Amino acid sequence: MPDDLDPQSDLPAPRRSTSPYLRNVIHDGVMHISGQLPYDGDGIRTTGTVGREVTVEQAKEAARLCALNVLAIVNAELGGLAAIRQVLRVTGYVACEPGFDGQPQIMDAASAVFLERLGERGQHARTAIGVAALPRQAPIEIDVTLAVDTGAAR
Amino acid sequence: MPDDLDPQSDLPAPRRSTSPYLRNVIHDGVMHISGQLPYDGDGIRTTGTVGREVTVEQAKEAARLCALNVLAIVNAELGGLAAIRQVLRVTGYVACEPGFDGQPQIMDAASAVFLERLGERGQHARTAIGVAALPRQAPIEIDVTLAVDTGAAR
Amino acid sequence: MPDDLDPQSDLPAPRRSTSPYLRNVIHDGVMHISGQLPYDGDGIRTTGTVGREVTVEQAKEAARLCALNVLAIVNAELGGLAAIRQVLRVTGYVACEPGFDGQPQIMDAASAVFLERLGERGQHARTAIGVAALPRQAPIEIDVTLAVDTGAAR
Repeated sequence: MPDDLDPQSDLPAPRRSTSPYLRNVIHDGVMHISGQLPYDGDGIRTTGTVGREVTVEQAKEAARLCALNVLAIVNAELGGLAAIRQVLRVTGYVACEPGFDGQPQIMDAASAVFLERLGERGQHARTAIGVAALPRQAPIEIDVTLAVDTGAAR
Repeated sequence: MPDDLDPQSDLPAPRRSTSPYLRNVIHDGVMHISGQLPYDGDGIRTTGTVGREVTVEQAKEAARLCALNVLAIVNAELGGLAAIRQVLRVTGYVACEPGFDGQPQIMDAASAVFLERLGERGQHARTAIGVAALPRQAPIEIDVTLAVDTGAAR
Repeated sequence: MPDDLDPQSDLPAPRRSTSPYLRNVIHDGVMHISGQLPYDGDGIRTTGTVGREVTVEQAKEAARLCALNVLAIVNAELGGLAAIRQVLRVTGYVACEPGFDGQPQIMDAASAVFLERLGERGQHARTAIGVAALPRQAPIEIDVTLAVDTGAAR
């Protein structure tokens, strides 16, 4: 399959956690993925609060990175994205000023990644909220639960 | 059955999403519903932050609307509320000032809707938190996961 | 078994909820536990916002209490911690100032409780976020979903 048809060929290697929790847990066909920050390589390029240091466009790019980091974890854990049966739930936390209401617009950039890479299997229930602050001064964090097929991979 | 005994007779038609996500996803008997805002008809009447523009009483009414919008989705998707086996988890996000601690009081109005309409099947685990801001300047958003019987409807 | 080997011997009695929601709901082997605040006995000793009234060290102790309250609920509901198959997902909400990014450090204290008491079964996916405010002026609230064995206990 040529690279341009392979939905996971350009995914980064997933980051390894040094904390006392796991990047993901699978139980009964459901994969719970830890909150993902917009890591790009080893760091987070865009930091700060949306509406102050960070623009909506920058936050959308960060949302896209969060979603790619989710897929990178699935890819590493299950040997490809074919193991995804359905993205079930995506929660998006946007660090923003009080009164900011562009969370859905920002989260659409994350949702689009799942649709582009997975088609109908990428459609999901979603919640978008605005929070006071996030780890590593990230402007966005996303939290994903997926139905996965572990038959072949485990 | 007279209307006053029918727990779903007065539910609004569920809103159609125009965004790249689904209003709900069902997997393995569990229904994940997207975060619901206090839509009343086509709009959100009460906007702003609790403790500033929005009173606790107004926020309780908004919480009630969020819960009704959840039930409207189940009703539309599964042809009635009888398909609900159990409300499992409700998360309530209240847009509020730092220092405000009335989130549980506000969320009780949402919880009460589930109890009134569903009896014991409406009892649920719950988390209530205060956030910086929400989509469409809503004072509250709720996020629900339910166990449903899809045998008849799907 | 001597007390020092019994991972649940020192857990407090779980608090009884007076609200219209349940402390936990179990469906299909998955236990959803309501958001837990850092109750210590009957009250919350440390209140306020991290970075203002509450230090990181105080917040870590509060995180530990939240995790113990989760385990107290499981212990009461299922007659012991042996019924836990796996902690699946932990979400930590830290009440903090904008710009604060120590949520993971604080949540590590909660994660450590699960590891200490449950070993590998205590490993979990995790999300840590900073929020505007929490019920009862608590500096932290955690929300947990676990896989449990209900065969013996129910």
